[in-house]
Amino acid sequence: MKNYRMLIQYEGTRYNGWQRQGNTQNTIQGRLESVLSRLTGAEVQIQGSGRTDAGVHALGQTANVLLPEGWHISGEALRGSGLPGLDDLPGCEALRRVMNHYLPEDIDVTELEEAPERFHSRLSAAGKTYQYRIGIDDYKNIEGRQFRYRVGRPLDVEAMGEALGALRGTHDFAAFCGNPRMKKSTVRTISAAELEEVSHEIRLRITGNGFLQNMVRIIVGTLIEIGLGSRPVSDMKRILDSRDRSQAGPAAPAGGLCLLRVYYD
Amino acid sequence: MKNYRMLIQYEGTRYNGWQRQGNTQNTIQGRLESVLSRLTGAEVQIQGSGRTDAGVHALGQTANVLLPEGWHISGEALRGSGLPGLDDLPGCEALRRVMNHYLPEDIDVTELEEAPERFHSRLSAAGKTYQYRIGIDDYKNIEGRQFRYRVGRPLDVEAMGEALGALRGTHDFAAFCGNPRMKKSTVRTISAAELEEVSHEIRLRITGNGFLQNMVRIIVGTLIEIGLGSRPVSDMKRILDSRDRSQAGPAAPAGGLCLLRVYYD
Repeated sequence: MKNYRMLIQYEGTRYNGWQRQGNTQNTIQGRLESVLSRLTGAEVQIQGSGRTDAGVHALGQTANVLLPEGWHISGEALRGSGLPGLDDLPGCEALRRVMNHYLPEDIDVTELEEAPERFHSRLSAAGKTYQYRIGIDDYKNIEGRQFRYRVGRPLDVEAMGEALGALRGTHDFAAFCGNPRMKKSTVRTISAAELEEVSHEIRLRITGNGFLQNMVRIIVGTLIEIGLGSRPVSDMKRILDSRDRSQAGPAAPAGGLCLLRVYYD
Repeated sequence: MKNYRMLIQYEGTRYNGWQRQGNTQNTIQGRLESVLSRLTGAEVQIQGSGRTDAGVHALGQTANVLLPEGWHISGEALRGSGLPGLDDLPGCEALRRVMNHYLPEDIDVTELEEAPERFHSRLSAAGKTYQYRIGIDDYKNIEGRQFRYRVGRPLDVEAMGEALGALRGTHDFAAFCGNPRMKKSTVRTISAAELEEVSHEIRLRITGNGFLQNMVRIIVGTLIEIGLGSRPVSDMKRILDSRDRSQAGPAAPAGGLCLLRVYYD
């Protein structure tokens, strides 16, 4: 078998998240696997760096897949794509283009290349960066609306930024974990976390060695309550220390969240 | 009656264009009129600066509407919106916010203000700028895909830019008019027309004192043929001089087109 690494972008709005489930057609992983199986005739399993929830987007999801030695794109699929010049491309670049042709317009494989045998998109991942976009006034931002959550009210960015500071470093993030039956460690390291105010919105970028289920969305939900003034800045540290999910705010809506990048050593 | 000027943004993808038709619910004008009627209890007619076709977007459509003196927002609609602080706002700013609350997320009234009685969004318009975005490689641009047309092949931007030059100035644009039964003058003045290459795409911006039906899309369809090398640069001038629609290329898809701005003296 040969191992391949893929970089994938998607708008998650109409999908039940990354992970394949019963109805494979409605997940990103399911869509990718079904197209890749059809093209190569091989049974494939695509391994993502992690699940993204229903409605969450990605501009840099990373995945890997094992293909049998000597795989090739079915002649029918190749002809059906009508894409010119594929013969002149390396096999995996041709495969990437034909995949994209058969994938829907809201899923894009932007890179596909051979990877070392030991490369595993989830287990080899050293960290990730997520972005959350919050609309702060009544501007709907027609062009980017699927990628942000519009609170529609002014937020105290300074207070939010100060609260965010409490999360940097290594902590037990149990209070920000959406899975009440989480048995493994809930300790994670946040190496960077910044808020930026751009026109009509606030953008949070947060980088860590790993994220618990719904972690970014619960952080954002809590930050929004602080930004609205319904919680004091000091609450963030108190919540963190409590390790109690019920102390934190609600998970902010999925549509504002985007997986920007996965890091490997 | 009092006259109001509105600035409107919309993603046209799921609408049958600007102009109200039998089924009012599925046009931008129809949506705006139905919300405004419901809010004020008045029979309203919203006058746009011009029609946009099914699937065409706008970031700066301008319209005007006459409301009876002493109009007010229905108490039920006001309470139903749950918007805070409306009492402190000028009447038309409150109306704008409540309208946006009841309008779908792909239509946004970004400005609403009193206008002189004689202001008419179509008859007073001195010019318009349209933008057309063409995707030139296989990058799907997940975030902006509804606003561009992906050719997916490299285009000769220099040739396209040269061809575009033939259109600047005052000409009879009959060859670029989608309405074969056009009885009025097909002479228009293009005051500015530029192509810009940005990452993964080419953007055309074109400003004129008026545009014929499908004019920008037929110009773009012809430019793409020139960019692909299937027509010589000199064709643009020849087509223009022919005044014959059958000489020009096909109308490029609606989704790449966006009305950016309408100018008034």
